[in-house]
Amino acid sequence: MLQIAVIGAGQCSESVALTAEEVGREIARNRALLICGGLGGVMAAAARGASEAGGTTVGIIPGMLMEDTNPHITIPIVTGMSHARNVVVVRSAHALIAVEGGYGTLSEIAIALKLGKPVIGLHTWNVSSKIIEASTPQEAVRLAVNAANRASSFVRPA
Amino acid sequence: MLQIAVIGAGQCSESVALTAEEVGREIARNRALLICGGLGGVMAAAARGASEAGGTTVGIIPGMLMEDTNPHITIPIVTGMSHARNVVVVRSAHALIAVEGGYGTLSEIAIALKLGKPVIGLHTWNVSSKIIEASTPQEAVRLAVNAANRASSFVRPA
Amino acid sequence: MLQIAVIGAGQCSESVALTAEEVGREIARNRALLICGGLGGVMAAAARGASEAGGTTVGIIPGMLMEDTNPHITIPIVTGMSHARNVVVVRSAHALIAVEGGYGTLSEIAIALKLGKPVIGLHTWNVSSKIIEASTPQEAVRLAVNAANRASSFVRPA
Amino acid sequence: MLQIAVIGAGQCSESVALTAEEVGREIARNRALLICGGLGGVMAAAARGASEAGGTTVGIIPGMLMEDTNPHITIPIVTGMSHARNVVVVRSAHALIAVEGGYGTLSEIAIALKLGKPVIGLHTWNVSSKIIEASTPQEAVRLAVNAANRASSFVRPA
Repeated sequence: MLQIAVIGAGQCSESVALTAEEVGREIARNRALLICGGLGGVMAAAARGASEAGGTTVGIIPGMLMEDTNPHITIPIVTGMSHARNVVVVRSAHALIAVEGGYGTLSEIAIALKLGKPVIGLHTWNVSSKIIEASTPQEAVRLAVNAANRASSFVRPA
Repeated sequence: MLQIAVIGAGQCSESVALTAEEVGREIARNRALLICGGLGGVMAAAARGASEAGGTTVGIIPGMLMEDTNPHITIPIVTGMSHARNVVVVRSAHALIAVEGGYGTLSEIAIALKLGKPVIGLHTWNVSSKIIEASTPQEAVRLAVNAANRASSFVRPA
Repeated sequence: MLQIAVIGAGQCSESVALTAEEVGREIARNRALLICGGLGGVMAAAARGASEAGGTTVGIIPGMLMEDTNPHITIPIVTGMSHARNVVVVRSAHALIAVEGGYGTLSEIAIALKLGKPVIGLHTWNVSSKIIEASTPQEAVRLAVNAANRASSFVRPA
Repeated sequence: MLQIAVIGAGQCSESVALTAEEVGREIARNRALLICGGLGGVMAAAARGASEAGGTTVGIIPGMLMEDTNPHITIPIVTGMSHARNVVVVRSAHALIAVEGGYGTLSEIAIALKLGKPVIGLHTWNVSSKIIEASTPQEAVRLAVNAANRASSFVRPA
């Protein structure tokens, strides 16, 4: 199954949340697994969208307790490692979609670029021409699924 | 959903593998999620059992690539953190079942006891009276599900 | 003792290495401890400068073996956690000096900004007005020492 | 320089503290670097001993702030990774001395044995014949220095 991470800030405006929610919904409609950091803001909105569309969501959280996840997470992965969990989010995804985002998101984008993972951006940090810009949630997910398919095809037929 | 980790060595005898496989099967029959370290031996056998019984399996791997997991993993979580991933396995489980096991397993048991997580043992390290000994895979999973239910009931009604 | 991290790419041009070396030398002259990621390029050059000026250098490495450090490291700290070690570099510093740098450096800058750590930049990523730009190694170290003194004064009289 | 870790519980009796302090003192007299987890109990006592004898001490802490270390730490390394930092303590040592110890210590012993690091025990967990038992702090440090010299001689002439 394709694993697509949605990254973004732990607090966000209502309009950014609507975008993230639609990204999550589209990921579920594409039968991909949504990976996120398990907290609020963009992470919670994307997980809500995926969850409401019948998808499965994994929240890889920085804290120490399962109940630290937002309520839309199907499977909490509990690291207790604070920001070091960002690396686990990146490594566990075939492709990432960044929805705006603060410094934590920037650190994830940077690690993803370092590792050669595809990054799709929706109004996010403009730090590299390797970030593939999208203008709608639908386009972002389509680009992510395509990139993830290419990335995973090097790997396992599955 | 209850999350039950199966821990044990990356290489094991055929008879230990049969035990681990039956543990995995029972976890799936109890509609719990199987968490493991994603590699071979006990981890692969337990994941195979759960997978063949229709369950979902999460492999939290020490290596850097998704394809480093055994083929019975539904959802690979890629840490790239070597043995530090043991802590993530422990924290992400409501209860753990140790099937024999070497030093890596011992480190996971120790962290679980440190964190107050229930540990069920099948012929494993005898380092604490807090380890609940079981004599069959069925008994081990029953004890783990009961302990996990108690542990998770402090948490979220869900 | 003040702990100042020098961050930058694992491979760099001769002219960037000269800059990093001078940064390291200045850190030692200021009797501060140099922290770095322990590998080559900017990290090795800064450690060489500090070491040759009589300073102590700590290399927090991503790999698994002490001998994976560059030869100018006094104290190797071995994480075996790949890029997750970047967070340890950032957290262990009172202030950071970024000398140019690639995506790994960008991830460290992002984590530092997230944590509110002072970041001094020498021709580095221009992602935030909070990055204090310097034009010479001497100025960079002076700014870092001042910022580190302010940061550490909240903490312990030492 | 040889790097010797002292591991043990974060809270301990006065008599265990005296033992740990003497271990720390002996490490400093042998001009080795003391590595520890940076917190209280055995860690603080060993660091105090080493520090008072003129040695250098490194505290690799689980918490997020430099000031979370005990006051006898020369160089704080801040991981913010809770128990995952135990792996860093183990990997950064040429040899380890366990002074009694609880479950956290047991996890460090297990990782050390997994990695083939020499472990000297003073009334500690009896989980492997590979643990070299000592009866006095002096003997423990002598055994650790010898083992560390053998371990590091495979590595770098230094």
